[in-house]
Amino acid sequence: MGILPFVAELGLIDHHCHGVLRTDSTREEFESLLLEADAVSPLGGSFFDSALGFAVRRWCAPLLDLPRHASAEAYLERRNSLHITEVSRTFLMASGIHTFLVDGGFQPDRLLSAPELASLAGAEAREIVRLEHLAEELSTAATTNEFLYQLRLRLRSPSVVGAKSVAAYRMGLAISGERPTEDEALRAMYVWQTWNPGPLKDPVVISWLAWEAMDAGLPLQFHVGYGDSDIDLHRCDPSLLTPFLRATSGLGVPVMLLHNYPFHRQAGYLAQVFPHVFCDLGLATHGLGHQASRVLGEALEIVPYGKFLFSSDAFGLPELYYLGALLFRRALSDFLADGLRRDAFLEEDAHRIARLIASENASRVYKL
Amino acid sequence: MGILPFVAELGLIDHHCHGVLRTDSTREEFESLLLEADAVSPLGGSFFDSALGFAVRRWCAPLLDLPRHASAEAYLERRNSLHITEVSRTFLMASGIHTFLVDGGFQPDRLLSAPELASLAGAEAREIVRLEHLAEELSTAATTNEFLYQLRLRLRSPSVVGAKSVAAYRMGLAISGERPTEDEALRAMYVWQTWNPGPLKDPVVISWLAWEAMDAGLPLQFHVGYGDSDIDLHRCDPSLLTPFLRATSGLGVPVMLLHNYPFHRQAGYLAQVFPHVFCDLGLATHGLGHQASRVLGEALEIVPYGKFLFSSDAFGLPELYYLGALLFRRALSDFLADGLRRDAFLEEDAHRIARLIASENASRVYKL
Amino acid sequence: MGILPFVAELGLIDHHCHGVLRTDSTREEFESLLLEADAVSPLGGSFFDSALGFAVRRWCAPLLDLPRHASAEAYLERRNSLHITEVSRTFLMASGIHTFLVDGGFQPDRLLSAPELASLAGAEAREIVRLEHLAEELSTAATTNEFLYQLRLRLRSPSVVGAKSVAAYRMGLAISGERPTEDEALRAMYVWQTWNPGPLKDPVVISWLAWEAMDAGLPLQFHVGYGDSDIDLHRCDPSLLTPFLRATSGLGVPVMLLHNYPFHRQAGYLAQVFPHVFCDLGLATHGLGHQASRVLGEALEIVPYGKFLFSSDAFGLPELYYLGALLFRRALSDFLADGLRRDAFLEEDAHRIARLIASENASRVYKL
Repeated sequence: MGILPFVAELGLIDHHCHGVLRTDSTREEFESLLLEADAVSPLGGSFFDSALGFAVRRWCAPLLDLPRHASAEAYLERRNSLHITEVSRTFLMASGIHTFLVDGGFQPDRLLSAPELASLAGAEAREIVRLEHLAEELSTAATTNEFLYQLRLRLRSPSVVGAKSVAAYRMGLAISGERPTEDEALRAMYVWQTWNPGPLKDPVVISWLAWEAMDAGLPLQFHVGYGDSDIDLHRCDPSLLTPFLRATSGLGVPVMLLHNYPFHRQAGYLAQVFPHVFCDLGLATHGLGHQASRVLGEALEIVPYGKFLFSSDAFGLPELYYLGALLFRRALSDFLADGLRRDAFLEEDAHRIARLIASENASRVYKL
Repeated sequence: MGILPFVAELGLIDHHCHGVLRTDSTREEFESLLLEADAVSPLGGSFFDSALGFAVRRWCAPLLDLPRHASAEAYLERRNSLHITEVSRTFLMASGIHTFLVDGGFQPDRLLSAPELASLAGAEAREIVRLEHLAEELSTAATTNEFLYQLRLRLRSPSVVGAKSVAAYRMGLAISGERPTEDEALRAMYVWQTWNPGPLKDPVVISWLAWEAMDAGLPLQFHVGYGDSDIDLHRCDPSLLTPFLRATSGLGVPVMLLHNYPFHRQAGYLAQVFPHVFCDLGLATHGLGHQASRVLGEALEIVPYGKFLFSSDAFGLPELYYLGALLFRRALSDFLADGLRRDAFLEEDAHRIARLIASENASRVYKL
Repeated sequence: MGILPFVAELGLIDHHCHGVLRTDSTREEFESLLLEADAVSPLGGSFFDSALGFAVRRWCAPLLDLPRHASAEAYLERRNSLHITEVSRTFLMASGIHTFLVDGGFQPDRLLSAPELASLAGAEAREIVRLEHLAEELSTAATTNEFLYQLRLRLRSPSVVGAKSVAAYRMGLAISGERPTEDEALRAMYVWQTWNPGPLKDPVVISWLAWEAMDAGLPLQFHVGYGDSDIDLHRCDPSLLTPFLRATSGLGVPVMLLHNYPFHRQAGYLAQVFPHVFCDLGLATHGLGHQASRVLGEALEIVPYGKFLFSSDAFGLPELYYLGALLFRRALSDFLADGLRRDAFLEEDAHRIARLIASENASRVYKL
């Protein structure tokens, strides 16, 4: 149950992550960033008693010169005795991720930007523009024309390699297969801003933004499945996207299904049948801790191996990039070792599958 | 694949079960109580040819002094040669369950009551009040005030430690996040009793009862997922409860998601993100027989270990308490042994996880 | 991880498959028939880089006198150097399937008919009539009476042993529990043919056809779950069939849930609680390649063993019959070997379970 050497040495492209926190964390903040809950509850006990909590103690403690399985208290004490920049650099460097595609549109003030992250990690970073956040920012534009101009300019910025929709959080994934006209979108924008200012939830605007991103040729990421308590999980089943995927399948622009747990089999189905659909298991890979192998195996059941990517979906805590990469490597290694043991493919095939998933699919799709 | 010694010796709190039958069973009755079907069909063959049927032959036969894997015929012959009280005592005592939380609201005439169960098992028993059944019983009250008084009195009875909603069977789990007013509830009650007497299916009344139980501070259990042919399984996905969970998350009153199979991953998600949500794998644990380990592993993927409980959901046949406990121990042991083998946590951590799930979470939540 | 001898020798009834192609295949055609995609996309790479692609190279190459794991190029070159009849015969004979139940209603011009398939394989073949296809064919009948007469005659043809509904593709599985009257059905037919000619999508006609098939006593197959990009996967959850299953449970006519992935647990639940419901894992079994064992284990969690059947759902490529049978045998063997290792049942029980699933359930249900 170690890691196959060729998997341990893979350079990774993390095609979906966020920035790391600029500051130290209290225990309360650390625990709440560990899982997707808003806060720890005395009813349910410490989040260190979870698969991910144990993974922090097992795998992260040694990188801070503590013994494996150091207690939560010892871990946080040691962590806070160091400068957060040093802690972050340690975990980022140890992840083996050489390129980060960063969605910087959620809580940007708390987090390092993409260039800061790249610099700290000694790696490359490129930007993923978060569509709803961008529309919210630009919605104060003086005129409609100015809004459209700025939006389209930003989608074509050289630093941007992809777009992301959080429709899952705002309306669910039942996006229409019919493209709204520009007029319909602008009318819906007006209604949103006039009558219901605040987070963008209008389905017409959200769907129109997705098409605009595809016009710009940007691979379009969708949050799918597992997230925090703001989602209604049953509305985040990726098969709800089918009409949209059918409508966009001829454009030659990739659609990336993120996370997907517990709908990773549905995502694999979509990635198999639609030429432009890809998927990953971000967030779940580290969230599952020592059980990640079974679920990665499930995620790889029917998806062609040219259609699956690595991502961490790490947010805030540098430990999550490291664990995202490490537990992904362990799970991928288990998958390949099992295939080799069953004589399902040759060792050279296993190497090729590993390279595809670790970085080559991302390079091809995002044209890195 | 044995049981780790510290798991074998765990005292269990069964936070959701029913009573045992007062009488012997014919083969037909035994088979129909084994699974969730109404009856055995000649089209499909004997239910002894199922995971649970084989578990009865493997594990229960020796407790009746038969060889392992005794035939179904030999098993039932031996069982019926003994007094049912003796049979029941044997299996209840062997389960290692020291406290039963009993939902006595389904077919109470056929079953031992909570105190009778306790006495037979040499254990403790406390009551879970079944909300829809209670409302049906009290609906003959002379006046609305009398109904309200009796309802609230019963919810505050010292013997009652929790409430249970079978909304899943009556309306599905898409309960509104808005609390009905008392007036709305009483109007809906009137319509139900006047125009549509019979089982309570009105969504306003069912939802209002859930809030009344939470007012009384009672942990509120929901049937979720797997049950008999009266449910529409897709309407029993626990994520349909999200609006209700969001609305009640600040009350500090626990919500317990029961069974959950095949939505146990969705249940684990909800238990992670909502501070007051807990879950179990009752019914499925024994229903899966020798395959329980994989599914318990799945159920424990992302749920914090302070949020998961043991239950049998046993009904009628005393074998089901024993198998519920035994197969749970085996599956929990497999989960912990796998974690230890992978060095995911220390042995002392494994002990703590085991105690939390076996009884400590239940003690804390139900204030036992 | 070999195959238990008694599983290797099982004669199989394939209760759901299609015909094999009459002609050789180009690489493009071969790859597109391998998976459920319409075509291979340069965005995502070759479908040989998939679980099924590797299974072809591993298991099919030796039957064409190539080494295991021969490259895709070598495999296709060798395959095309042989006559397609010889290739087809080789794989069909090697499958160990002695009876094929053939749905010949999809792309009949490209494929061998049931009798041709039987002759080539040295096996038996019987017909499954595809209801929507039949209605489309007969819809040019001169009169309503002629339509009804021909429909009912065909459903009672001696060569027909079952019917199949592709409601999943045309309307989803949310079929009403109320039987349409003949008048309602004929009115809906008229509207379909007059205003919307083309594939039958009318829910009243589709549902009425299902009832007509049951009137004829034909086991009624439903496509469920996994298929090509024409389905909306979330509308193919078998639990959407619950009202229809409840309404038909007293008829004594079997309902067969086909494929089911990724809803195989839901299918197992339905097969457990409804006396007339049966299920399989066709298409997924070979689609999953070396990972088929885990999913077959899941599919067999709560279904009584008298309710589960083998099928390949092979279409077009003769390799798929062989792989469907071979990977099914491997997965079934893994399931039984695991049960024996855990002492869950006796070897004679394992033999009986194997025979039930391999052929006896199909013999009983289809009265073969």
